[in-house]
Amino acid sequence: MTFSSRITEAAPDGVDYVAAAHRHLWRHFAPMAAADQEDLKLIVRGEGSYLVDAGGRRYLDGLSNLYCVNVGYSYGEEIGQAALEQYRELGYHSSWATTHPRAVELAQRIAELAPGDLNHVFPTTSGGDSVETAWKIARQYHLLRGENRWKAISRHMAYHGTSLGALSLMGIPGSRSQFEPLLAGVVHARNTRRIGRPDAETEDEFTVFLLDDLEQRIISEDPATVAMIMVEPVQNSGGALTPPRGYAEGVRALADKYGILLVADETVTAFGRMGEWFATARYDFRPDLVTMAKGLSSAHAVIGAVAATDQVFEPFTRAGVTFKHGNTFGGHPVMTAVALKNLEIMERLKLPGRVRDLEGALEKALRSLEDLDVVVEVRGAGYLWAIELAATRPDGSALTAAELDRLYGTKALAAPLQDRGVMLRVSLDPGYPVISVAPPLVAGEAEFVLLTDALRDVLTIVDRDRSAGKK
Amino acid sequence: MTFSSRITEAAPDGVDYVAAAHRHLWRHFAPMAAADQEDLKLIVRGEGSYLVDAGGRRYLDGLSNLYCVNVGYSYGEEIGQAALEQYRELGYHSSWATTHPRAVELAQRIAELAPGDLNHVFPTTSGGDSVETAWKIARQYHLLRGENRWKAISRHMAYHGTSLGALSLMGIPGSRSQFEPLLAGVVHARNTRRIGRPDAETEDEFTVFLLDDLEQRIISEDPATVAMIMVEPVQNSGGALTPPRGYAEGVRALADKYGILLVADETVTAFGRMGEWFATARYDFRPDLVTMAKGLSSAHAVIGAVAATDQVFEPFTRAGVTFKHGNTFGGHPVMTAVALKNLEIMERLKLPGRVRDLEGALEKALRSLEDLDVVVEVRGAGYLWAIELAATRPDGSALTAAELDRLYGTKALAAPLQDRGVMLRVSLDPGYPVISVAPPLVAGEAEFVLLTDALRDVLTIVDRDRSAGKK
Repeated sequence: MTFSSRITEAAPDGVDYVAAAHRHLWRHFAPMAAADQEDLKLIVRGEGSYLVDAGGRRYLDGLSNLYCVNVGYSYGEEIGQAALEQYRELGYHSSWATTHPRAVELAQRIAELAPGDLNHVFPTTSGGDSVETAWKIARQYHLLRGENRWKAISRHMAYHGTSLGALSLMGIPGSRSQFEPLLAGVVHARNTRRIGRPDAETEDEFTVFLLDDLEQRIISEDPATVAMIMVEPVQNSGGALTPPRGYAEGVRALADKYGILLVADETVTAFGRMGEWFATARYDFRPDLVTMAKGLSSAHAVIGAVAATDQVFEPFTRAGVTFKHGNTFGGHPVMTAVALKNLEIMERLKLPGRVRDLEGALEKALRSLEDLDVVVEVRGAGYLWAIELAATRPDGSALTAAELDRLYGTKALAAPLQDRGVMLRVSLDPGYPVISVAPPLVAGEAEFVLLTDALRDVLTIVDRDRSAGKK
Repeated sequence: MTFSSRITEAAPDGVDYVAAAHRHLWRHFAPMAAADQEDLKLIVRGEGSYLVDAGGRRYLDGLSNLYCVNVGYSYGEEIGQAALEQYRELGYHSSWATTHPRAVELAQRIAELAPGDLNHVFPTTSGGDSVETAWKIARQYHLLRGENRWKAISRHMAYHGTSLGALSLMGIPGSRSQFEPLLAGVVHARNTRRIGRPDAETEDEFTVFLLDDLEQRIISEDPATVAMIMVEPVQNSGGALTPPRGYAEGVRALADKYGILLVADETVTAFGRMGEWFATARYDFRPDLVTMAKGLSSAHAVIGAVAATDQVFEPFTRAGVTFKHGNTFGGHPVMTAVALKNLEIMERLKLPGRVRDLEGALEKALRSLEDLDVVVEVRGAGYLWAIELAATRPDGSALTAAELDRLYGTKALAAPLQDRGVMLRVSLDPGYPVISVAPPLVAGEAEFVLLTDALRDVLTIVDRDRSAGKK
């Protein structure tokens, strides 16, 4: 096969890749002990919703490779030609004092696709970079209007990036604690996970409860010091937490009441995953700022952006004012060219509409697993779903950390799923086990069947082990 | 010309680019008032060391487009083909639980090029991302060894990135103040600018003075709380501040004395600019961590990396330990493929050796300007130079901010230089005017002449205006 021969050809000094990775490549979020490197999988190509490893094994990518490869893996030729064309013209230019055509085109395209008057597009390099940028915009915005507001409110378990500013907003305690102290002035409000709430509580009552918690956080900080509230329209970490009825409108109302900017982090949700170009068109948050990245290029480029409303942008257009922020790579000519091509492909394939058409089928497929005792809840929307598994024994008592790992760790869940040809992510970070299901937006019925069959196979074993109280 | 016809063709709805930029593109570090948008230059292609704007005007890029396009603009075809080949194979994959061939190859290549045992390469997306990563590595490294060290020391006027963590290390007060409060625990030591020191002070005495200042900062913080010292081998911001004799060794000795990690930020200096693959091979800092980005791909990709020594990496290889850090885009297949191709081109062109061969000629050309009264100092090394201009009137009294702007602002310096076909950066951020000169590493005698002639023309006028006390 061409890919494996290219590996051999390209291997420096004919070395073994796994050995070379072990010697030199420090992977992200990965245990790097020698024992953890032996089974390292090398992915060498992709096709549609599938990835292929160096041994020729094929996997359904049930996670869109970190929620980002929205168009899947079959558009490399077309996107690569767009990149090549731009490389021939101009392989790099900044967007500082001067700019270049593709940055302008992409800014205009994003403004067209974004809801409302999110007309002003600051190019960035990633979701985390966008989050950092949004917070800096929010701080200076308030200063320019004569208010010293610098704090931020995000939500428990929310993932907003890993640079130290974004990490301060991160709602996953275990991802922060090794790196503290972080930025002062961040508090985490309740997220929209409903499990554990009283059975009698209605959806509207749950919304009131959440908004009361958020308002209490604002009041506790002194509202006059709070610069922004940051929320994902559907919170990814913690497991596809959709907003209950009235929540989006309520958050917007609190932001207005206290003069706080509302930032929608759409790094995961934008560009079709929720059946719209932006999820804030589906859920009515009406944000002042929107951050985006992954789907913007289907991760075929390293690019993100922040879109701001006319109102947020206005103070930055005053004479003598400069937003002293930026970096080398934001708005890169090739990255913007690739993002433009990706958006063109998504539009041609009508991917947001496809998601609206098929999300019901995906939901139905996943809900078919609800008969398993180990499945606590299937939730989500669009092509962003989560299967929350039991953190308790059948008698309702809590599983220990060791038991959780034994039942739901890599060897028990992710690896057997891979053996059945499905790559999925299982997280224990929230304190409960949750499987993320977020296939490329080109996936359809055949992939839903493959996913569900593999999940049923593996979860049936887990279910049995849990019932047997396997230690 | 093809490029201008492509602009017209690609223009959405046939719009005017400058007008579209004004409506939608929020540029970096740029004043966005309507009046500032009228003269916006659109760069549409490049060639060798030159950029061409939409009107067909050609400019020598005297700054390597933010110190990064080391190979210049003539390798788009070759680099673009490498990108296309990778897009055909695999357009995206993460380097989290699994990886892909190009990430492994680039990690190995960087480890080969880096001095000493900087063998472990964590892929990132930019210089700022690398700086954030290095700080997080340093914090967890100490925790894993049982020490709670979290503070950092950088230097006055140093630029280490703009995300809120990196911004805390930023030594330019005016770039921080709109965004405070930042991370606690950063102090800024003296940089190596010698202007203003006593005439009688020898170079060795200056070194002793600087190291004493650094040690005092460490002691004032409590050495047991300091995680890292971050320095650029040659500090770019403030104007090409080279280390005096004995300084690098002295910083290393202080780091060792107090158990602090020494991080060399080589975002600007690595990959040939100082005549070596890494400047820490020229100046003997022997760092524990090195951050890199721009030159790694000559900015043809959005990519960076952190290299760590065996000693730093070791605690992260213990069983049960994970460095819980990473992001979507670090180690991107296409970005790593482009970086590999860029390094191959640099090697083929022997660019580090070329810089060593020609740096003397560049120095001589720039020093020819020293006869102008307004030139205070020409300093630098390799292809990274600065011309510091007078912040005083001829009688030695300080110029006001308004006078500085009138003499050295965009209209007085950068724009007339552009009119003479040279793009250069003039900064007043340090509190004194400084022109950065950092051409692509493919530039030679012809470019040095062009640069120097344009500078002499413009600085002669500035010199006259200053002598005339022009208000």
